[in-house]
Amino acid sequence: MLKFDETLFLKLVEEEGLAFRGQIEEIVDGICQRGFSNLFLIGAGGTIAMMYPYEYILKSNSTIDVHAVIAAEFMAMNHKHFTKDSVCIFTSVSGTTQETVAAAEYCKAGGATTIALVAEPGTPLTRIVDHCITTGSEKHSFDTFFMLLYMVVFRFMHNRGEFPQYEQFTKEVALLPRAILQAVKVFDSRAEAFAVRHKDTAYHMMVGSGNLWGNTYSYAMCILEEMQWIHAKSIHAAEFFHGTLELVLEDTSVILLKGEDETRPLTDRVERFCEKITRELTVIDTRDFAMEGISGEFRKHFAVSINWAVLSRISVYLERERNHPLTLRRYYRQMEY
Amino acid sequence: MLKFDETLFLKLVEEEGLAFRGQIEEIVDGICQRGFSNLFLIGAGGTIAMMYPYEYILKSNSTIDVHAVIAAEFMAMNHKHFTKDSVCIFTSVSGTTQETVAAAEYCKAGGATTIALVAEPGTPLTRIVDHCITTGSEKHSFDTFFMLLYMVVFRFMHNRGEFPQYEQFTKEVALLPRAILQAVKVFDSRAEAFAVRHKDTAYHMMVGSGNLWGNTYSYAMCILEEMQWIHAKSIHAAEFFHGTLELVLEDTSVILLKGEDETRPLTDRVERFCEKITRELTVIDTRDFAMEGISGEFRKHFAVSINWAVLSRISVYLERERNHPLTLRRYYRQMEY
Repeated sequence: MLKFDETLFLKLVEEEGLAFRGQIEEIVDGICQRGFSNLFLIGAGGTIAMMYPYEYILKSNSTIDVHAVIAAEFMAMNHKHFTKDSVCIFTSVSGTTQETVAAAEYCKAGGATTIALVAEPGTPLTRIVDHCITTGSEKHSFDTFFMLLYMVVFRFMHNRGEFPQYEQFTKEVALLPRAILQAVKVFDSRAEAFAVRHKDTAYHMMVGSGNLWGNTYSYAMCILEEMQWIHAKSIHAAEFFHGTLELVLEDTSVILLKGEDETRPLTDRVERFCEKITRELTVIDTRDFAMEGISGEFRKHFAVSINWAVLSRISVYLERERNHPLTLRRYYRQMEY
Repeated sequence: MLKFDETLFLKLVEEEGLAFRGQIEEIVDGICQRGFSNLFLIGAGGTIAMMYPYEYILKSNSTIDVHAVIAAEFMAMNHKHFTKDSVCIFTSVSGTTQETVAAAEYCKAGGATTIALVAEPGTPLTRIVDHCITTGSEKHSFDTFFMLLYMVVFRFMHNRGEFPQYEQFTKEVALLPRAILQAVKVFDSRAEAFAVRHKDTAYHMMVGSGNLWGNTYSYAMCILEEMQWIHAKSIHAAEFFHGTLELVLEDTSVILLKGEDETRPLTDRVERFCEKITRELTVIDTRDFAMEGISGEFRKHFAVSINWAVLSRISVYLERERNHPLTLRRYYRQMEY
């Protein structure tokens, strides 16, 4: 596959990712023993979007009080649920994202417990937080972070007595990298076909819900807009019918992300509508992927990872077809503002 | 002013709106005496967007547990914080919005306490909920709802001992309709000029934060997209720098909503960036409006109402300049899906 090194992927995501299980459980168990009041999942752009699935999963499976917050807004707003008993979780590829680093310092100064997942070792974020998992490689960092976050979040639920299936679930986390690999191989030709067909498409709607809302938001903003300079509107499947639908015409590109959680019927409804109106509906459905070895009851959770990985295949083909490097920026980190 | 009946506005928003103060306090005080675990603010499209300011206000001023949720997703997701001790608050102009009515039934069936603000009397929502404030007129219903929601939300905070200024605040709620009227008069010519200049603009970015995020989201989706069929991307001021900024060119229309809460610096940053790049930056800043009689410390809260009212002036001029009725729909309530 174009720009995909299978051996490296398995080494980084499977071997190295799983190697952190013991460390994660030690951190989470220690926090649970000392007691905590709530979880703050904190990020900016792609890293706050990455937290939304876990906020959804917690809210629909656990009574743990959880807040996914945008770093810069969180620091400004004087959030009344944030206290020294809060646990604050961050991720960062570079370990240098301005607002994330500042938010970690803010949380630390407030006496809260801080945990970070960081790709690059020795960077500011790794030094600030109480507990840092440093994965060591920027390659496949989002796939790795997702896997680590499953372990972190479900361990918190397990320790609260709300997830007795934890042992089985964690065994299946270990199968996820191979399930991802299987899915991207199946999807790869579709990703290429999409990029060829849409290389000149100037605008996409992206629709999703539930634990896939974060991916929907992120792919539109951080990939299509930021990395390809293509206009993209992300819209929640339940909200689609309260405005954005009016703009769908027969040639409007709508990318619908379907997962397997409780909100799937909301995306079914968008699909039925769009099928009637546009020729350019692209449905990306995790049900199309085998997820070998994954139990039926856990598929919905792992759909987040699978969905992100297959979307990422579209990115590399858009880059090629549009001759537009994913790393090109007009403004971000190019100028002061 | 075009399509604005001042006498009617003052009658509906000021006289009739304020007349509900006693009823609201009775409802809220009764709930607080019986005790409750959390607040759910529930809506779809414009009515969930209308709740976001109050969720922000609560999170930054109160320890009350609050969840603003999209009605259809909330019903699907099995939200673990929803119990019989929850208080669920709804608004609806027509009293018939499908998901809102269904969500009210769901909450009622779950044994929770339900409160609704509805414009049209005798409609389904008015009959389902435990407590209904029926305003009686669709005209200026959003302005009225905002005013009623201030009373509801700040009364909850007051009863928890977190808002000792309640008496003074409520006196100033009574001054809000005239402050709004003053603001729309000052803004009206700017609204008209905007509509004339942008009648053929095919795409706007709308940026806001804090308690104005709801208006930002709603104006883009429910007015520009739904009522004018103009593409609009709403983007949080803190998130703008993580993707969408890359699409700003010298002729890109950016509508920046500036309020007066703690997150104002986030919008300052967007303003500084956009001033350097585009000729088509429109800043709508509540500081430009006198808000006569409103205390400095409360201006930030009332900015939500003021901002929405002045944005609404743009709508009527867009309708005229574009010869596109605000009521025209291609699909919503025109077909089954």
